[in-house]
Amino acid sequence: MFFDVTDSSTIATGDDAAPLFDGVTTPDHLAAERLRAALGESRRGQSFGRLADVAAQIASWQGQTAPRPLERARVVVFAGDHGIAARDISVFAPQDTVKQADELQGGGGPAQVMARASGASLRVVDVALDRDVWGDERVMRSSGAIDVDDAVDEEQFSRALEIGKRVADQEVDAGADILLPASLGVGVSTVTAALLGSLTRTEPVAVVGPESGLSDEMWKRKVSVIRDAMFRARELRSNVPALLRAVSSADLVALVGFIGQAAVRRTPVLLDGAPETAAALVANRLAPGARDWFLAGQLTPEPAHRIALAELDLAPLIALELSTGQGVGALAALPLVRAAVELAAEELSAHK
Amino acid sequence: MFFDVTDSSTIATGDDAAPLFDGVTTPDHLAAERLRAALGESRRGQSFGRLADVAAQIASWQGQTAPRPLERARVVVFAGDHGIAARDISVFAPQDTVKQADELQGGGGPAQVMARASGASLRVVDVALDRDVWGDERVMRSSGAIDVDDAVDEEQFSRALEIGKRVADQEVDAGADILLPASLGVGVSTVTAALLGSLTRTEPVAVVGPESGLSDEMWKRKVSVIRDAMFRARELRSNVPALLRAVSSADLVALVGFIGQAAVRRTPVLLDGAPETAAALVANRLAPGARDWFLAGQLTPEPAHRIALAELDLAPLIALELSTGQGVGALAALPLVRAAVELAAEELSAHK
Repeated sequence: MFFDVTDSSTIATGDDAAPLFDGVTTPDHLAAERLRAALGESRRGQSFGRLADVAAQIASWQGQTAPRPLERARVVVFAGDHGIAARDISVFAPQDTVKQADELQGGGGPAQVMARASGASLRVVDVALDRDVWGDERVMRSSGAIDVDDAVDEEQFSRALEIGKRVADQEVDAGADILLPASLGVGVSTVTAALLGSLTRTEPVAVVGPESGLSDEMWKRKVSVIRDAMFRARELRSNVPALLRAVSSADLVALVGFIGQAAVRRTPVLLDGAPETAAALVANRLAPGARDWFLAGQLTPEPAHRIALAELDLAPLIALELSTGQGVGALAALPLVRAAVELAAEELSAHK
Repeated sequence: MFFDVTDSSTIATGDDAAPLFDGVTTPDHLAAERLRAALGESRRGQSFGRLADVAAQIASWQGQTAPRPLERARVVVFAGDHGIAARDISVFAPQDTVKQADELQGGGGPAQVMARASGASLRVVDVALDRDVWGDERVMRSSGAIDVDDAVDEEQFSRALEIGKRVADQEVDAGADILLPASLGVGVSTVTAALLGSLTRTEPVAVVGPESGLSDEMWKRKVSVIRDAMFRARELRSNVPALLRAVSSADLVALVGFIGQAAVRRTPVLLDGAPETAAALVANRLAPGARDWFLAGQLTPEPAHRIALAELDLAPLIALELSTGQGVGALAALPLVRAAVELAAEELSAHK
């Protein structure tokens, strides 16, 4: 196999160049402290457990002691095809990405069902789908096969990042008060594993989960693809933009842009699974402090997810082995976030 | 201290007498199997994790492969005062029980807030409140102090059980398709710990949790009350009605009646905390098979809760240290149950 090792000398400027994000301001920790103190004064407030912590975080994000109900929860699904899907490493066929994106855009599929149930709305952003119709947000037709090639070139990287940031700006400007980034694309778990393995120096076999339905042969191929990608990126760990160009995808880069910009715009981010959490980890490197705007919706069985959560020091709200993607897990956790707001607000008003 | 040890010879007839519940029929396991098989056929259905299990349970309860949305979720809060509340074993004062019941009946309090957020409605049943107004469902004015006295006498026991059963019948007849039993009463965690300790032969110190806000002195008194109650009941473990008369309360007995009758009436029961789960454990002894109609909403930090769940072999949906009582934890889990129905129904219709 030919290893098209990315020449780090040409792209190591990434970290030295102009920062990719504006500065992230810290949430209003005083508002959180005030709410914590108010809840801690009553036995009932003490009984809210982790929902009191969530309420305090929301107070810090909203900058007021009594948290306001979340009025516009918005799921944004970044969809893209991945060159490595051709390696037969998933129980889905490569063409399933477009099918699922079409289904979502048509109002169907699990994420739409969950969005309706949880009082959220959903937007699909076609970053790199392998189909003929080109939208404004399309960067490329499928990202590079990262075992042998870069995921994106410099221009594609910049465009993908800008699109993610632009979509975040659009959503915040339209009134979103909590954002649920999501991903859709056959092969994204493989790409995520390679990226996270590179970032955290984790062995390929340790970042790959026992995906249900995957045969032993497919699993071995998946590990092999991840190993080859990590080998290509072995010198790039400290240069995050270069690493992203080598082993990620246009949709993951857009996710990074979206999540980082949400934090810049002081808007909380509710995370779903491994791709979103790995992108959040990257966003926190490129936009230091972004992590303080994150909430972990759930824990999936994917090891890469657990590792990324641990790196970010985030504790998930639920752990029900929901690995559907498309934001389904974050949407399942959203009612708990709403409940935290409601409980805290009621307790504050009862003690006024 | 005077130990009014209940004479087991006069009440050991409980188990030999006519059964306290009609027979519990088994859920439709075939419907569950069919749904499981249908979900297992698609990679997406496999990704639903524990929500697929919940959907299969609902299919078995509803007796059809494609689960129907839950249309009438109903919280029933059994409220009662407990003689042992006078021992200063809680951060709440004894008179707080009536205050909280009034607040709930007036549409306020955390459980009402959560019920509105989760699309459920709530009913308060005054089984043993220590106030002047007597309702149809009142058995007594506060249950006996179980460290020195029986909780209820034979007549009170029968009335409390009948009231619980009657309320379940009323709710099922009115169309409830999932019931969320709840309890309210200062001292109920102490009574629950004593009952569960007796049932499962668990040491008093091992059934009492580190309740937040409780001083060391209060904690010691609480353990001492539980120890004395368990000593009074030491011969009654195998005679469940006698045990309930000795160490429980009118509201817990009503909960047992309610939960057992819900199962008899083929209606699923979503459990909240330690009192409800201990009552469910008792209901399953008196109405064998009732357990197959239970779903554990959450895990609280109360050891008695964990023990009761383990005895029933139930796995909670969330574990967020929500110890508010009044059904708040079950209500927090309800959106996940609804999500399970929605996801499974959508997946089935997509593959038709």
